[in-house]
Amino acid sequence: MTAVSAPTSAGTSFDLGPARALSCRECGHQIPLAAEFACAECFGPLEVAYEFGKIRREDIEAGPKSIWRYRGLLPVPSDVDSHPNTDPGLTRLVRADRLGAALGVKNLWVKDDTGNPTHSFKDRVVAVALAAARQLGFTVLACPSTGNLANAVAAAAARAGWQSVVLIPSSLERAKVLTTAVYDGALLAVDGNYDDVNRLATELASEHEDWAFVNVNVRPYYAEGSKTLAYEVAEQLGWRLPGQIVVPVASGSQLTKVDKGFREFGELGLVEPTPYRVFGAQATGCSPVSAAYKSGLDVVAPVRPDTIARSLAIGAPADGPYVLDAVRRTGGAVEDVTDEEVVEGIRLLARTEGIFAETAGGVTVATAKKLIETGQLDPDAETVLLITGDGLKTLDAVADRIGPKATVPPSAKAVREALGF
Amino acid sequence: MTAVSAPTSAGTSFDLGPARALSCRECGHQIPLAAEFACAECFGPLEVAYEFGKIRREDIEAGPKSIWRYRGLLPVPSDVDSHPNTDPGLTRLVRADRLGAALGVKNLWVKDDTGNPTHSFKDRVVAVALAAARQLGFTVLACPSTGNLANAVAAAAARAGWQSVVLIPSSLERAKVLTTAVYDGALLAVDGNYDDVNRLATELASEHEDWAFVNVNVRPYYAEGSKTLAYEVAEQLGWRLPGQIVVPVASGSQLTKVDKGFREFGELGLVEPTPYRVFGAQATGCSPVSAAYKSGLDVVAPVRPDTIARSLAIGAPADGPYVLDAVRRTGGAVEDVTDEEVVEGIRLLARTEGIFAETAGGVTVATAKKLIETGQLDPDAETVLLITGDGLKTLDAVADRIGPKATVPPSAKAVREALGF
Ligand SMILES: Cc1ncc(COP(=O)(O)O)c(C=O)c1O
Ligand SMILES: Cc1ncc(COP(=O)(O)O)c(C=O)c1O
Ligand SMILES: [Zn+2]
Ligand SMILES: [Zn+2]
Repeated sequence: MTAVSAPTSAGTSFDLGPARALSCRECGHQIPLAAEFACAECFGPLEVAYEFGKIRREDIEAGPKSIWRYRGLLPVPSDVDSHPNTDPGLTRLVRADRLGAALGVKNLWVKDDTGNPTHSFKDRVVAVALAAARQLGFTVLACPSTGNLANAVAAAAARAGWQSVVLIPSSLERAKVLTTAVYDGALLAVDGNYDDVNRLATELASEHEDWAFVNVNVRPYYAEGSKTLAYEVAEQLGWRLPGQIVVPVASGSQLTKVDKGFREFGELGLVEPTPYRVFGAQATGCSPVSAAYKSGLDVVAPVRPDTIARSLAIGAPADGPYVLDAVRRTGGAVEDVTDEEVVEGIRLLARTEGIFAETAGGVTVATAKKLIETGQLDPDAETVLLITGDGLKTLDAVADRIGPKATVPPSAKAVREALGF
Repeated sequence: MTAVSAPTSAGTSFDLGPARALSCRECGHQIPLAAEFACAECFGPLEVAYEFGKIRREDIEAGPKSIWRYRGLLPVPSDVDSHPNTDPGLTRLVRADRLGAALGVKNLWVKDDTGNPTHSFKDRVVAVALAAARQLGFTVLACPSTGNLANAVAAAAARAGWQSVVLIPSSLERAKVLTTAVYDGALLAVDGNYDDVNRLATELASEHEDWAFVNVNVRPYYAEGSKTLAYEVAEQLGWRLPGQIVVPVASGSQLTKVDKGFREFGELGLVEPTPYRVFGAQATGCSPVSAAYKSGLDVVAPVRPDTIARSLAIGAPADGPYVLDAVRRTGGAVEDVTDEEVVEGIRLLARTEGIFAETAGGVTVATAKKLIETGQLDPDAETVLLITGDGLKTLDAVADRIGPKATVPPSAKAVREALGF
């Protein structure tokens, strides 16, 4: 991995709101804001460092009904919402008493991020990446993706009038392929798994300086978008942190940013800095972080993914070590569940709360169940489950288990018979 | 059609907020609030009549971030949001400059109702129907549906812990079938088209007094939910009515309630009562209302639907005459478009604004285009298009036209070649 500069970055200073520098997560080395993603000293990943102004609850509450209400906490200019973008966020936080009863948890919430423009949390990170990329002088929005990111990038680029280049593994779900292609950018299927596609993207990013690969060369900015999930949970709980939160893990970026978001809210005095525990959820067929957690390791050994939770099928997770750190520091855990349990998780959530999640959501629900059964998650503490993607995109996961009870002729008698009355 | 009473309705008075009576749209005859839908005098459809309290913008703005911010204008109790429901609404109103440029409209907005819990506007009407049905003493939520309503009813019932009975034509799209079945209610496929299924539901409603068929015996309450689309548009425009609005038409309920919502906001002083024109959009393969409009008739002759816009495939639209009235009274029109144009409409909206609509949305966009080309819609007036359903539910409509540009091996050279660099 080498650091890549966008065309206009030399000597310029960018309007990225409260962002002040990029800082290495490994060695702490700081550089000016730029289109860089790896530390020149140690090759560690770079992260946005801020100087926050005074942020008050009232100002947030009076702000846009989207993630831009938190723009003072993101690496975006203050007029960010005046540029065409998908305005994601402010999705429902759902009180989940029926699911809670099924799981044996007293005080349960579901954050339903399927309400976003392309129905996954990826609209958040892409909106931030697009805003930063615009400031950094890029002209093409690109990504390697396990599906949801492809949808979000293609849609956001279309809305902004940008060209997009999206690379996906050729084995992706039909719905995710079509829902990317319809936006009419440049979509290419790559023979290989996500990790192959990701390597290819890293190579291309170093050769095409006007291409913003949102999760590669713009990753430090992109990743900050995931903080908004934590911000919203805290605001929607009434300016309070939950005791526990369960987050699905692919690259691990989202989980680390949920932790960062809660911490920032506490530090800024927007909430009481009460303790919270962060839990990671993986599918057993791609559980490198869970394996490392269980073995007590700090490093994550790559695996070859084999699971129906294709959106989480990242065998070499870039933020794996930081997930381990966040989880251990907060007293959480990482757990993994079988594909069979994933499907049961999807169905349980749908049946109890009327929310239809994709496989990643099934992973979250099933992992929560397992964490409770194994005594790792406290059933008496207030708990939030992040549902980050939509069931309509992974229909095949449930298709052979569900369907109409019967097909009947148009007669009331036939209906009653079919229903067993 | 006969009026049906719910078990507890005799002599009771219900807490349905500002609703005061049911009033016949044909003869004006009024009856007390009850689970009735047809006038005992003339068999005309009943509608909710209100006595509104003082409604102020500030109170609405300070209310829930869902349709319940308008609860003072709906037939629901004031504590409606304390019962488990899907909390739909407050979806994005998107400034659509790129689509506007493509259509030649200066001042264009898209109301993107795909952000609702089950990704169509039907979550609005179902949430109101459920709240009213709870007050009226029903215990089962039911419907005949062209798809989206099925999704919304099954999800809302699951969340509320109610039993559901959903009847769909057996030819429905796979995504709509599965997205209903997953919530684990009683889903039956019926051999017949929607109009057959609707007749069957009317028969069942008269025989099962505890079944609230949301769009049959609870229809007066249900229909009011569609007003919230108009309310949101006006609030999101900054408390102002648009000059023109284009609404897809199946039974025609939604269109008439958009008109009602705008009128009420004007009468209540929440907006200036400026003139607005309401336009109806249909697919040519099921265009009974458009045909009546063009022939200058007041009645709508039923047709046998044959169109890819299956959610709009109602050949005998219950509110057809009221659509004609609203459209003519406001100076609008009804127009229809071919299936080919529907697909082009879907793709145009996706390409320009990053919004992926289902076939009904394609109908709206394509009809807007045709209305402009034929000089019926004023390209200089502020215009809103209602996008009421999600592209993920009707993938087959576009599947054979779109897809990856190519499948390539994981090499940068192959990517560049495929992209033509
Ligand atoms: C639906 C869904 N949830 C969760 C994730 C995990 O995100 P991360 O890579 O930040 O761990 C992804 C990643 O693609 C996803 O698509
Ligand atoms: C997506 C969508 N839009 C519009 C409509 C039209 O609704 P109405 O029957 O109120 O005219 C429907 C009806 O099912 C629908 O599913
Ligand atoms: Zn470093
Ligand atoms: Zn009457």
